[in-house]
Amino acid sequence: MNPVTHARALTALSRETRLCISLAARPSNHGTRFHNWLYNQLDLDFVYKAMTTTDIDAAIGGVRALGIRGCSVSMPFKEAVIPLVDGQDASATAIDSVNTIVNDDGRLTAYNTDYLAIASLLAEHRVDAASSVLLRGSGGMAKAVTAAFADAGFTDVTILARNGDAGSALASRYGFTHRVSADPGDSADARADVVVNVTPIGMEGSSMIGDAADRLSFDPAVIDAARVVFDVVAMPVRTPLVVAGERAGKTVITGGEVIALQAAAQFELYTGVRPTPAQVDAAEAWAAAD
Amino acid sequence: MNPVTHARALTALSRETRLCISLAARPSNHGTRFHNWLYNQLDLDFVYKAMTTTDIDAAIGGVRALGIRGCSVSMPFKEAVIPLVDGQDASATAIDSVNTIVNDDGRLTAYNTDYLAIASLLAEHRVDAASSVLLRGSGGMAKAVTAAFADAGFTDVTILARNGDAGSALASRYGFTHRVSADPGDSADARADVVVNVTPIGMEGSSMIGDAADRLSFDPAVIDAARVVFDVVAMPVRTPLVVAGERAGKTVITGGEVIALQAAAQFELYTGVRPTPAQVDAAEAWAAAD
Repeated sequence: MNPVTHARALTALSRETRLCISLAARPSNHGTRFHNWLYNQLDLDFVYKAMTTTDIDAAIGGVRALGIRGCSVSMPFKEAVIPLVDGQDASATAIDSVNTIVNDDGRLTAYNTDYLAIASLLAEHRVDAASSVLLRGSGGMAKAVTAAFADAGFTDVTILARNGDAGSALASRYGFTHRVSADPGDSADARADVVVNVTPIGMEGSSMIGDAADRLSFDPAVIDAARVVFDVVAMPVRTPLVVAGERAGKTVITGGEVIALQAAAQFELYTGVRPTPAQVDAAEAWAAAD
Repeated sequence: MNPVTHARALTALSRETRLCISLAARPSNHGTRFHNWLYNQLDLDFVYKAMTTTDIDAAIGGVRALGIRGCSVSMPFKEAVIPLVDGQDASATAIDSVNTIVNDDGRLTAYNTDYLAIASLLAEHRVDAASSVLLRGSGGMAKAVTAAFADAGFTDVTILARNGDAGSALASRYGFTHRVSADPGDSADARADVVVNVTPIGMEGSSMIGDAADRLSFDPAVIDAARVVFDVVAMPVRTPLVVAGERAGKTVITGGEVIALQAAAQFELYTGVRPTPAQVDAAEAWAAAD
């Protein structure tokens, strides 16, 4: 399968071609395929390559010194890069977590396009800020989601988290409530207008919580009482939570929307070109077909 | 014109693709086109990109930390990178000048493939080490050429150089003779079996010495007395010196041979694959067609 209509050959690269990279402990193929597919479609003189490093200081120094245009940042570098950049966008400052670095002639600015994507989706799906929210998770992505809810004006938010310290710290930062919950079953009595999963429950191949891929991240009774169901898990897009939300006729927001929006925002920051939703969908399909 | 038979698309890149770069104050397109053309022909999962930097320390630190497989080094970084690498091949040690860095899992080794190419050509063309040699030039490339002659056993070598300090330092390093010569005309009386030009005289677009592109780098009487004519200038390959040598039936060694051999050696150091002479010629043609 190759949906590329105008194949940009490797031999078209020149000294003018801009390089963007990613840094992750265990790089996936997603970014490399997603970005190069769009460069190709949009005829942009860029090339993208996933990388890893054991020396994040020297790696970011190299991004600056080599004139690498953009650097996507994944685990475990999202906080470590903060002291290494020259400036932060509000999206990164909001959560002390960076997933995107833009290099303007040696000046590095950090962004968090996960935060930007969540904020966009809450607006796009017209989720009322007066709604009560149950948010499961306390990791890096949960920080982005929580900050986006807070900045959108939500005040009635409860963080469900196994990790007491991380959960309570995250909740108290925004005046939200924290409730210890090791498992969807132990919070079956909770109720809210909006339920949001920011854990690996429902993720393909997840080995963090037993048979997590097949499990609902909220008890059926909790889902039943909600109006909006939001799952940040993107692989697969149709998690058990998303399927249950669709069947019950809820407003459903998926991790596929998050990943597409955050990638589009990142792409625009690097290239100055905003791909259309259809182009993003096609690039996602190409990236996922690996 | 596109002689590529199996076009490797940009969309074929993955996280496994190895990146090689070049560092120069003013990057040309040559390396990017040459290497990517051969990756394509040989179906190697590599990509090559010319770069520049204003911070060579951080740039080489980035090569190491980002796992960039190879880094070609041009002016003005050929000496500056020496303290930044972890080890030197004899080819670089011989002349304190580096044009190739290979990254093996974070350990950087420096080479000089210009030196390696000159040494190969002297052997290939069976130039007798008992020959007397007139060598014009005292820059970085002249250091590589002089060292290769010395290491091949030549002892009767005279360096003709405008720059008295550089010329005498280079000559005395190997027990050779230095003669000040600002111009081919002022050394018309010199005689040797082998004449070698390592200056920009005869180079296309050279603005260093007036109408240098149209000029012979040795007086016709000197060429007439020689058996071997060697021009390191590669643009064009058929310099006035090469043309004169061919017309007079001399053994002629061209800058085209130097550039092709050094690039092939560099390519092999990065990829482990030695391109055939025909593949190198085709890649050179593609690189030159820019």
